[in-house]
Amino acid sequence: MTTNRRNFLKTATFAGAGAMAGGLISGCSPKQTESQLAAIMESVKKTHAQKFNMSGYAAPAIPVIRVGIIGLGDRGSDAVDRLSYIDGVEIKALGDKREVCVKESQKYLAMIGRPAAQEFFGDENIWKKLVELPDLDLIYTCTPWILHTPISVYSMEHGKHVACEVPIARTIDEAWQLVETSEKTKKHCMMLENCCYDFFELLTLNMARQGMFGDIIHGEGAYIHNLMGMNFKKPLDDKQTDEAYTDMWRLKENATRNGNLYPTHGLGPVCQAMNINRGDKMEYLSSMSTLDFTMEPKEKELVSQDPFFAPWKDAKFRGNMNTAIVKTALGKTIMIQHDVSSIHPYSRIHLLQGTNGKVVKYPKELIALGEEWADDAKMKELYDKYSPEIVKRVGETAKKVGGHGGMDFIMDWRLMDCLRNGLPLDQNVYDGALWSSIAPLSEWSVANRSQSIDVPDFTGGSWKTNKPHGINLETGGTTKVLDLSETK
Amino acid sequence: MTTNRRNFLKTATFAGAGAMAGGLISGCSPKQTESQLAAIMESVKKTHAQKFNMSGYAAPAIPVIRVGIIGLGDRGSDAVDRLSYIDGVEIKALGDKREVCVKESQKYLAMIGRPAAQEFFGDENIWKKLVELPDLDLIYTCTPWILHTPISVYSMEHGKHVACEVPIARTIDEAWQLVETSEKTKKHCMMLENCCYDFFELLTLNMARQGMFGDIIHGEGAYIHNLMGMNFKKPLDDKQTDEAYTDMWRLKENATRNGNLYPTHGLGPVCQAMNINRGDKMEYLSSMSTLDFTMEPKEKELVSQDPFFAPWKDAKFRGNMNTAIVKTALGKTIMIQHDVSSIHPYSRIHLLQGTNGKVVKYPKELIALGEEWADDAKMKELYDKYSPEIVKRVGETAKKVGGHGGMDFIMDWRLMDCLRNGLPLDQNVYDGALWSSIAPLSEWSVANRSQSIDVPDFTGGSWKTNKPHGINLETGGTTKVLDLSETK
Repeated sequence: MTTNRRNFLKTATFAGAGAMAGGLISGCSPKQTESQLAAIMESVKKTHAQKFNMSGYAAPAIPVIRVGIIGLGDRGSDAVDRLSYIDGVEIKALGDKREVCVKESQKYLAMIGRPAAQEFFGDENIWKKLVELPDLDLIYTCTPWILHTPISVYSMEHGKHVACEVPIARTIDEAWQLVETSEKTKKHCMMLENCCYDFFELLTLNMARQGMFGDIIHGEGAYIHNLMGMNFKKPLDDKQTDEAYTDMWRLKENATRNGNLYPTHGLGPVCQAMNINRGDKMEYLSSMSTLDFTMEPKEKELVSQDPFFAPWKDAKFRGNMNTAIVKTALGKTIMIQHDVSSIHPYSRIHLLQGTNGKVVKYPKELIALGEEWADDAKMKELYDKYSPEIVKRVGETAKKVGGHGGMDFIMDWRLMDCLRNGLPLDQNVYDGALWSSIAPLSEWSVANRSQSIDVPDFTGGSWKTNKPHGINLETGGTTKVLDLSETK
Repeated sequence: MTTNRRNFLKTATFAGAGAMAGGLISGCSPKQTESQLAAIMESVKKTHAQKFNMSGYAAPAIPVIRVGIIGLGDRGSDAVDRLSYIDGVEIKALGDKREVCVKESQKYLAMIGRPAAQEFFGDENIWKKLVELPDLDLIYTCTPWILHTPISVYSMEHGKHVACEVPIARTIDEAWQLVETSEKTKKHCMMLENCCYDFFELLTLNMARQGMFGDIIHGEGAYIHNLMGMNFKKPLDDKQTDEAYTDMWRLKENATRNGNLYPTHGLGPVCQAMNINRGDKMEYLSSMSTLDFTMEPKEKELVSQDPFFAPWKDAKFRGNMNTAIVKTALGKTIMIQHDVSSIHPYSRIHLLQGTNGKVVKYPKELIALGEEWADDAKMKELYDKYSPEIVKRVGETAKKVGGHGGMDFIMDWRLMDCLRNGLPLDQNVYDGALWSSIAPLSEWSVANRSQSIDVPDFTGGSWKTNKPHGINLETGGTTKVLDLSETK
């Protein structure tokens, strides 16, 4: 199928066809419609009477977890690999609209001696058939963002636990849908915020838990990563992994919304260290975006070179850099940034400012327990002494399995270990909903001259008594890591 | 004179006695009164018809500059030292309400073989007598913040150029007074933003001028420095330099205002790199503060230990960390932070994000002209190749003279060289007014749930055509640095 302007717009259901058309046709940056912005404000005002508290909730143990994976591109195919190393996890179903992706992952399972999974491919809604299977415990979703909430809600409604890539919601309304569905069904709904499981983030979370930085008064996170190459890359539909986004979905997000579209990687670890949703909560935020200085020139260049890009003619894009600031109920602040379209070294910042010390990860991992940064020898000492149990247990294996340096595997292993042992998850539906909601909230603030907007309390007040999660793994942690050579 | 609550309040003219009393008596953080906040908004709305454009203005050359220095504590006594190394500069008058300070600087001048200066000391308003002297060209002010604008305005009205420590204004109204007086009198009014003259800032400004980072879309600056020791130190009135603030004036600022009180060190170099007031201008800002988690506990501790601190009983203090975000007319953003009361290594951040590269100074000086940071060898190459002429000319001397590693001396030398040669100054009244105004604007935003507030255009529209200043010193630069041994 040749992409032309007509079907480009037709498949682009992002934020409504009206906004998409508006984004493509006029304005200096994508303009959300008045009704979209009003909808954000409406959803923010919603008050929520919690039906059941999913924070700290432990579902019945599932010794053998039957998993269906939806979305088998670059990210989902890696998940198939990682999950195959975890004892007690059976990959029972594979789904993607593109046949080639399903077949490739099926081949991989065969290669490593695992049973064949059921296959689902061929149309946009095929994921529903997969979710409806009776013999699955968990739906693991790696699709474009726009499907995250629909798949997650449908999965919980069909009795499945949910693990879903970030961000799990694109609108406040979607975030509420997730919360209400999880509370109603008592199904876990975990957003897969892998950065909570990186080594430095786990180290500093553990140190924060022990009070080594004093009160953490301010945190910072970011997603600063040059994605110009991937966002503008023409997808190769006959390949599973092509370092491009199917249907260029991610560029469409950047052409229809203006704010911090991808806040969770920087925010997750900071929120955990600051006990957000568990003793503190977000109150309001203000956000500001630059204009776009790079994407429109790139679009013009590509449109002039290749008819494939014709539908992008005159597209307008989100501002390169977004900065958002958040106030919490206890009077602390969080700063979050997002820039995927200018040139810079990668950074998630990960800054924690305590009354007695400071942490920052980029450009170099540094910890100060006074007014001087620890030197390399002291940093090694801190790593040795304060890395939490989960790192000691699976950290080395994780580095070998890979996935962003190991954090993806630590996350998957921990998720599966919790489900198998009937433990509460580290990230519950309130976390995913909140962290994701920064995107639409920032969109509203950017569109309103950086006026502040209230942040919804997805916990319905239970933040006051919810307990911090058990990242230190003082209990639990029985799941074996498989040597794949054994399973062939 | 024993300090007691009565005369403490009497001398504390900070933001009006009402606010001071309010700050000391109640609330979780200092509360500005409604009328103070309304005054900020009123001053913001002011439109300004420029009478004369001081941007790019060159006053008639003054081959020998007769200087009066007001405020001779830790900072002013250093200025006496630094200025004494510059050819064509005569220190003609010394003023401070404390006799000991004037006498000590006089002794220093005698020691290095310079003529005695006229002395002014003994009461709060003695600086007026100094300013009224007929035979001075420049008033160099290092007093507490609250006197900066009154002295600067009075000096220009009495025919003197002005060099004044940061921040040069505490309110928007003061900032307007400076602008109007400078335009009316055609006297230079330079805020002494020394951080514009640090080696890395000069290097990266020069690289920015040459377009090496592409369009600079986002900048960041900060004043993050633990001043708990100095802010709470009991002043020793019989000493000139005691690392404390006379009458504890700086702690009073922190007890009567809540926002980013000290924005200029981080902001100055970023604004120069981004051509603010010279091709771009600030449009609006939002700001957010944490609560105070450290100063009130410190106050309680001291009050319980020493009757000297009794007037501070029940004082409330500004939030530890303030973050402000600013949008510019060209669609760029600036983030500014301020924290002087939690524990951390010193940082002014100094981050420049361009479309083609990135700069950050803390925790380590780094430059990326692609997606990797330059290594140490490459950094040395960049320093050698792109340090501007001013550094080559006086950088090594400046390191020997000292003053925050040399930047203070480069600043003083450059100021005096411009005045002696009849060149425009690098920082004009619009810069000082704007950079200082971030403080009251942030106070308003913090007090209004981080709603955004317009930033006044102090240039009266001339920002559109004003030219960047001549930091590269391709012309000028004739002033000799004295070897003091010659002058003895």
